[in-house]
Amino acid sequence: MTDPLPDHAPLRVAVLGAGTVGADVLRVIRTSADALTHRIGAPLEVTGIAVTDLARDRGEHVDRRLLTDDPALAIRDADIVVELMGGIEPARTLLLEAMAHGASVVTANKALLAKDGVALYEAADANGVDLHFEAAVAGAIPLVRPIRESLAGDHIQKVLGIVNGTTNYVLDAMTRTGASFDDALATAKELGYAEADPTADIEGHDAAAKAAILASLAFHTRVSLSDVHCEGITTVTPEDIAAAGRMGRVIKLLSIVERVEEEGTERVSARVYPAMLPDSHPLASVSEAYNAVFVEADAAGSLMFYGQGAGGAPTASAVLGDLVTVARQRVHGGFGPRESRYADLGIIPLDGLRNAFYVSLTVQDKPGVLAEVAGTLSSHGISISTIHQETVPAAEGDPERARIGIATYRALESALESALDDLDSSGAVLGIDSVIRIEGE
Amino acid sequence: MTDPLPDHAPLRVAVLGAGTVGADVLRVIRTSADALTHRIGAPLEVTGIAVTDLARDRGEHVDRRLLTDDPALAIRDADIVVELMGGIEPARTLLLEAMAHGASVVTANKALLAKDGVALYEAADANGVDLHFEAAVAGAIPLVRPIRESLAGDHIQKVLGIVNGTTNYVLDAMTRTGASFDDALATAKELGYAEADPTADIEGHDAAAKAAILASLAFHTRVSLSDVHCEGITTVTPEDIAAAGRMGRVIKLLSIVERVEEEGTERVSARVYPAMLPDSHPLASVSEAYNAVFVEADAAGSLMFYGQGAGGAPTASAVLGDLVTVARQRVHGGFGPRESRYADLGIIPLDGLRNAFYVSLTVQDKPGVLAEVAGTLSSHGISISTIHQETVPAAEGDPERARIGIATYRALESALESALDDLDSSGAVLGIDSVIRIEGE
Repeated sequence: MTDPLPDHAPLRVAVLGAGTVGADVLRVIRTSADALTHRIGAPLEVTGIAVTDLARDRGEHVDRRLLTDDPALAIRDADIVVELMGGIEPARTLLLEAMAHGASVVTANKALLAKDGVALYEAADANGVDLHFEAAVAGAIPLVRPIRESLAGDHIQKVLGIVNGTTNYVLDAMTRTGASFDDALATAKELGYAEADPTADIEGHDAAAKAAILASLAFHTRVSLSDVHCEGITTVTPEDIAAAGRMGRVIKLLSIVERVEEEGTERVSARVYPAMLPDSHPLASVSEAYNAVFVEADAAGSLMFYGQGAGGAPTASAVLGDLVTVARQRVHGGFGPRESRYADLGIIPLDGLRNAFYVSLTVQDKPGVLAEVAGTLSSHGISISTIHQETVPAAEGDPERARIGIATYRALESALESALDDLDSSGAVLGIDSVIRIEGE
Repeated sequence: MTDPLPDHAPLRVAVLGAGTVGADVLRVIRTSADALTHRIGAPLEVTGIAVTDLARDRGEHVDRRLLTDDPALAIRDADIVVELMGGIEPARTLLLEAMAHGASVVTANKALLAKDGVALYEAADANGVDLHFEAAVAGAIPLVRPIRESLAGDHIQKVLGIVNGTTNYVLDAMTRTGASFDDALATAKELGYAEADPTADIEGHDAAAKAAILASLAFHTRVSLSDVHCEGITTVTPEDIAAAGRMGRVIKLLSIVERVEEEGTERVSARVYPAMLPDSHPLASVSEAYNAVFVEADAAGSLMFYGQGAGGAPTASAVLGDLVTVARQRVHGGFGPRESRYADLGIIPLDGLRNAFYVSLTVQDKPGVLAEVAGTLSSHGISISTIHQETVPAAEGDPERARIGIATYRALESALESALDDLDSSGAVLGIDSVIRIEGE
């Protein structure tokens, strides 16, 4: 490094939370101090680190003298607050207070942004400070910045993402090994890919929070968590995975945000569910706990971003990128993109969408049943694309049964719902085993 | 759009060049005027469009009243100059002049940036204006912004990219069909994937310009075109492609920029050559004219960016993203990242690198030749990883010949060079058919 370090007063940084990510952020701030100073134009000075457990060892790079269990104290006088504590409160109150004091904020808190981002955006606006959150969606993968800035002159139609590593690991393991959901989840826990309480991941809540954030950015519209239709992966069976394989597809938990135009009116759909993707789709080969996001824009065409969506170091990378941006702005003036909600599109509920479906039924194994099922679907305007029937081994004395797997062309969600009701009340249909949407075709 | 349009004086935009990309940029400025005004905080007003041929029809969205064949006139009084004319001069002089007048610049001119970026960076610095060039590398794929900003707190080790669509199309066609280079190139020309004079693409010059730009950004060091080792794809044969396939590899033209540490000193390598990649590498499946860039950083781990690297609309998308950023900065103050060259690393020449190689030799088909070849490589410290030998059909009366394909472990480039010299002068070796590096393992 031959250039002299810039001569500028240090920027005061408060870090809220010093778990894996926080400790990594603090490590880089210390070990790459000169590089960061060059890139920013001023040195960073960590002035406070708020933690709940003062006694816990956090490694050599977390200066114990800066630890406090009073986050309100840590943020006082800070130029920049890095929030890594997670959860709604007290994070929300602390960030609003920090911005009211004139501090810029870098946060990885997707739950807070998805639930109450509006309050944060408005506080940033009102106080003329920056609010950056690249780490809140897909960890190290640059996604917020590309969508807010690189594609700012384009018109995004759809974002299709694998944004939850735990569920991708579980589904990938089920696909590779034929394991049940419970067994794959147990393995994921053992290997550290799933938390002890994996509810937020496997029920799709984490992916839904990210969908809300992505939809807000992509469509210049306020979309909050309650606008996102959310289904998890707990009901996906090895039979579903096998059926997908037979059809040249894989099952992935997708966060989908989409611009839907009907009769000249544009609305936004935001949804999370397990879906079948063709093997040839770029997202189909995303394995283990990796994340990837596929973006379709009018001019740019199809783009894909791929990388590690979670973990201490990758998340720290995203936080540090934001920290440099925000710090540069403190030194050189200007500010990053504000909340953009001018388009103010309405939300289209799931049952107004047209989707393709895979439906698996257990039926009586007798002549005419297949025709009856096809007729019921047809009466609701649903066309069949492929069909697969196999006999189910029955115990001695039980009646013969068969399993029918049907892939449909695109049809209204509400039409499928009605058709399933009719099938359910048909004597020939013994059970509806699975309904999984087909995407990416 | 429910929010009222911002009330701010228009920003004056001059566009230099109105070919495919320029016409697309002008179309979006016109058709998405309100959306852009919201995103920027002020309307854009195109005040001049410089072209060489005033008579040519450029479609309905290029206002003929704004056309001029005097680019110096077009840039006068502009707030922002969008340069899409390409080439070194007069683009260089015009951009320096525009910046001297206080205009910010958006350019897609990779040749100019790679050859004389320093003059542009310094002019932007000296005049306190912005210089953005996302479209110069990999078209619509957000890459410059992620590397300069998203990864600004990370430490990039290596960037491995397919950044030239023409060569990827040709190599992909050779791989799919077994065609010769000449035949695949002819097809690419017919389909519009190769220009009438494809020299800059097939000789690697275009990829080398992008490598220079990427290396400068990734390593905070000035790297210019003359620092990039460059080999094209004209010598790749169907036999090389087949040999790669036998080994579970594909051949891609790669732009590689890498941080190389030796004895505590870091240097930068920037190079372009056709290389074999394992089928399992994320870049291996990038087909047709698509681009993709793989980035390895200390904290973020492996990231990949994928999309359309060329074409009017995709390039226009990148230009428009930059235009919005630059325009926002004119309205709200601040400026984007400046040239960052503080690290000032030296350039490591190719022969100082350690690479793995595939070497194909034609030899006399007699006992002891394989041992002799292996011995020669070994005497230069080169270990063999795999070897494949086959007899070459000989004409009646000719001596028997064999072809040996060898994959080596990593060895110094200079050692391989010496070994090839020795092999070349060995009586048993009738010819060195190919030398192709192996990457991504």
